[in-house]
Amino acid sequence: MTTTHTDTAWAELQTRFQELADLGGIGSLLGWDQSTYLPAGAAAGRSRQRALLSRLRHERATDPAYGRLLEHLGGRGDLSPVQARMVAVARKDFEEATRFPAAFVAAWSQHGGESYSAWTGARPGNDFARMVPYLEKSLDLSLQAASYFPEFSDPMDYFIDQSDEGMTAAQVGEVFAALREALVPMVDAVTGAEAPRTDFLARHYPGADQLAFGESVIRDYGYDFTQGRQDLTHHPFMTRLGGQDVRITTRVKDNDPTEALYSTLHESGHAMYEQGVAEDLLGTPLGGGVSAGVHESQSRLWENLVGRSRAFWAAYFGKFRDAFPEQLADVTEEEMHRASNVVARSLIRTDADELTYNLHVITRFELERELLSGRLAVRDLADAWHAAYETNLGLRAESDVNGVLQDVHWYFGSIGGAFQGYTLGNVLSAQFYAAAERVNPGLEGDIARADFGRLHGWLRENVYAHGRRYTPNELLERATGQGMTVEPYLKYLREKYGALYGVTL
Amino acid sequence: MTTTHTDTAWAELQTRFQELADLGGIGSLLGWDQSTYLPAGAAAGRSRQRALLSRLRHERATDPAYGRLLEHLGGRGDLSPVQARMVAVARKDFEEATRFPAAFVAAWSQHGGESYSAWTGARPGNDFARMVPYLEKSLDLSLQAASYFPEFSDPMDYFIDQSDEGMTAAQVGEVFAALREALVPMVDAVTGAEAPRTDFLARHYPGADQLAFGESVIRDYGYDFTQGRQDLTHHPFMTRLGGQDVRITTRVKDNDPTEALYSTLHESGHAMYEQGVAEDLLGTPLGGGVSAGVHESQSRLWENLVGRSRAFWAAYFGKFRDAFPEQLADVTEEEMHRASNVVARSLIRTDADELTYNLHVITRFELERELLSGRLAVRDLADAWHAAYETNLGLRAESDVNGVLQDVHWYFGSIGGAFQGYTLGNVLSAQFYAAAERVNPGLEGDIARADFGRLHGWLRENVYAHGRRYTPNELLERATGQGMTVEPYLKYLREKYGALYGVTL
Repeated sequence: MTTTHTDTAWAELQTRFQELADLGGIGSLLGWDQSTYLPAGAAAGRSRQRALLSRLRHERATDPAYGRLLEHLGGRGDLSPVQARMVAVARKDFEEATRFPAAFVAAWSQHGGESYSAWTGARPGNDFARMVPYLEKSLDLSLQAASYFPEFSDPMDYFIDQSDEGMTAAQVGEVFAALREALVPMVDAVTGAEAPRTDFLARHYPGADQLAFGESVIRDYGYDFTQGRQDLTHHPFMTRLGGQDVRITTRVKDNDPTEALYSTLHESGHAMYEQGVAEDLLGTPLGGGVSAGVHESQSRLWENLVGRSRAFWAAYFGKFRDAFPEQLADVTEEEMHRASNVVARSLIRTDADELTYNLHVITRFELERELLSGRLAVRDLADAWHAAYETNLGLRAESDVNGVLQDVHWYFGSIGGAFQGYTLGNVLSAQFYAAAERVNPGLEGDIARADFGRLHGWLRENVYAHGRRYTPNELLERATGQGMTVEPYLKYLREKYGALYGVTL
Repeated sequence: MTTTHTDTAWAELQTRFQELADLGGIGSLLGWDQSTYLPAGAAAGRSRQRALLSRLRHERATDPAYGRLLEHLGGRGDLSPVQARMVAVARKDFEEATRFPAAFVAAWSQHGGESYSAWTGARPGNDFARMVPYLEKSLDLSLQAASYFPEFSDPMDYFIDQSDEGMTAAQVGEVFAALREALVPMVDAVTGAEAPRTDFLARHYPGADQLAFGESVIRDYGYDFTQGRQDLTHHPFMTRLGGQDVRITTRVKDNDPTEALYSTLHESGHAMYEQGVAEDLLGTPLGGGVSAGVHESQSRLWENLVGRSRAFWAAYFGKFRDAFPEQLADVTEEEMHRASNVVARSLIRTDADELTYNLHVITRFELERELLSGRLAVRDLADAWHAAYETNLGLRAESDVNGVLQDVHWYFGSIGGAFQGYTLGNVLSAQFYAAAERVNPGLEGDIARADFGRLHGWLRENVYAHGRRYTPNELLERATGQGMTVEPYLKYLREKYGALYGVTL
């Protein structure tokens, strides 16, 4: 920033960044409202509004003048490191938005809609065969998409890079292989032990009291309600509607208070990450979480490592019982802790517990790799699914609805990179927590006092504030001193579940 | 629509219409959310988003290619009458959006912001003198704005035409003069009679029960909750967020159940009008209420002519007492009816009752005319205000905060046309109701049975469905067989308040 020329160009770039961010925020509002308050009859009009806004944003994101400005600034040597990263990330986004031919985008998008529609029709009849031609076309289109980015030699790398910049299929595959090797016997041991008592969870817990309790916890965590709020929805999510507007949603089950509670804690982790991004990065391409994996690490950290810990219930069981005195009259703190950590093999990813969840994800990741590499044909996918579930989870679904047809992701028309972030998040959550604990010994004692200042402060400083300033791998190195490793996560699982279930893991 | 050429042009026009409507709907969502759920810390970002969206919409509304398309289609003779009206209204909107020079728009907008800010500072100190230079500039700018539309010989006509197309200061002035002549002695007589009992209104009415009751009433009225919803806000309003999305907001006072109830009934009237616009007009310039006056007539009709009637309480007092059995244990249906029709002279427009409200509005309308004509100088406005209140309401405010500083309207930087719609609405509400009653004798009996089918049906067919298809005066002629006249309204007031207060009016 030494010349006036650059300053003018930079000011123009900032204006464009802010405009793109604001259009993104408006789009998020349209989506948030659709998932929370939109009247039933207004869905078609809302879809049209969202399409219009996407088009307006796309026009700006692909404006050739914007591309020239980025190229000009990217070629100059007088930018600060942060500015240079902003331009680099923006150029990457610009390439992503412009490199596909318009006809390809249209064809892919149309296919996605048709495939989704066919999937909703195929599920009631358990009709995987009907989906085979759609999935084959999805695979073709996905490979074609990757082919526009020849800098990735493996198509899977292209898709992973979309959500977890700089990570590769090889790197993730190695971590996941190590994880499975450890998890399979761990699940055997834990599910072989006596199951915890859970009867009291099925009692009646009024929704409003559940919400109030969950919100009191995340207020303690550090979620800022002056820059966000929580509302009800069907499928909980976090969304950024503006620089100072990061909202979460949850859902309530009257006969299971862990549903709303852990959804709230989970989404609050995503939201605190977004709320903690340094103010001078907001309204720029760096003004948000860096990757699916790192984002999920923050939700999992607050949901599981904190929220399902013994220390958490030491801090909150009294308050929880104050909120539900009758329902919990015959329940101990330890029973509550155990009930919030039930492990059971299941066929459905979204129902899975902390321990088995990863095996669902690893299964999908490996099948994606097989499909994209051509080693697995779509027509053999349902069988491969069943075989993988037998190997990884020791279960075989009686139908494809509870097998390969269960998740929507592939049926939107794209195959690759859709799942690994969930388990990367689990792995990274323990790695970040261990690093925070190294500089802040005794974090568990903090949690037992409902004092989250040191933990939140460390995360804010070492993760949240940076936004997309560094790549996920760089961020991890800076924050933890090492690259991605599965050891802290396995250590956490072994200690926790070993103690909870009285087994040696 | 006889040639392919026109069909193509028409299709392009429809696309542009829909896009403008959708951008308008998105803007309404940004505003609705800001007034209902926006976190406190997010206001600045939201303002920037709204400004961006306004700019995007303005760019499209003033696109020269759009102007040429309108001109081309307006010049053709093969349009249907509805199409011709669409083009005419769109051209009027286009002129409105383009005839001001950009520098004038910027100066006016900036002045509006500064004036509003000064007004918020001047109110605590009751400092009208501070506002004089701002109002003088507002007056200058308003006159300049009108001068860009020399087709209006009276600047006041220009401003009235903005909200009540085709009506003139002379026409409105005549109606208002007749109204005042009748109202002043009526208010004298009514306020001289014994005041109704209202003590029970100040008891505690839980907010959630109030909302449920109000919503049950408007569901009976015909407000469609599958295409709308009600939420809480500070200043209740109705807003169209899309073709099938017309929402209302309300506010609740724990110690006055009439606050939420009549706000809900009022806004439901606006909303049923918007919900009733014929589907083939939605997404076009004709897809909404035609004028401030006609809009207000619908809110007032459902709030006052229906909602404060004896028949209404015959239908609803039982249900109301079911909702609040303790609070209303010692209250009769007749007492409730009387308590919802208290008349009292007051200094503040927004606190005024049905009868005196019009005198507040007439005062402002006449002062606007005086200012715009140059017969009244801004520096004399505060005194003129006090004098007019003595004449019209028999009261003199002890301060300007309760006088000329009370309403925000003029302090946004524009003077003219801001108020008359409220009283036009009252006048028209009775005219429409009387016309509906002529074709549907015994409407009062319907209301007493909570059966609103005939009334809602007549309004839908004769008012709602037409949107902006006709001018307000045309609509009125078609629906009622005559031009605007104050007689039905005066007849309604005389009968109602004569009976309620036992006086001859």
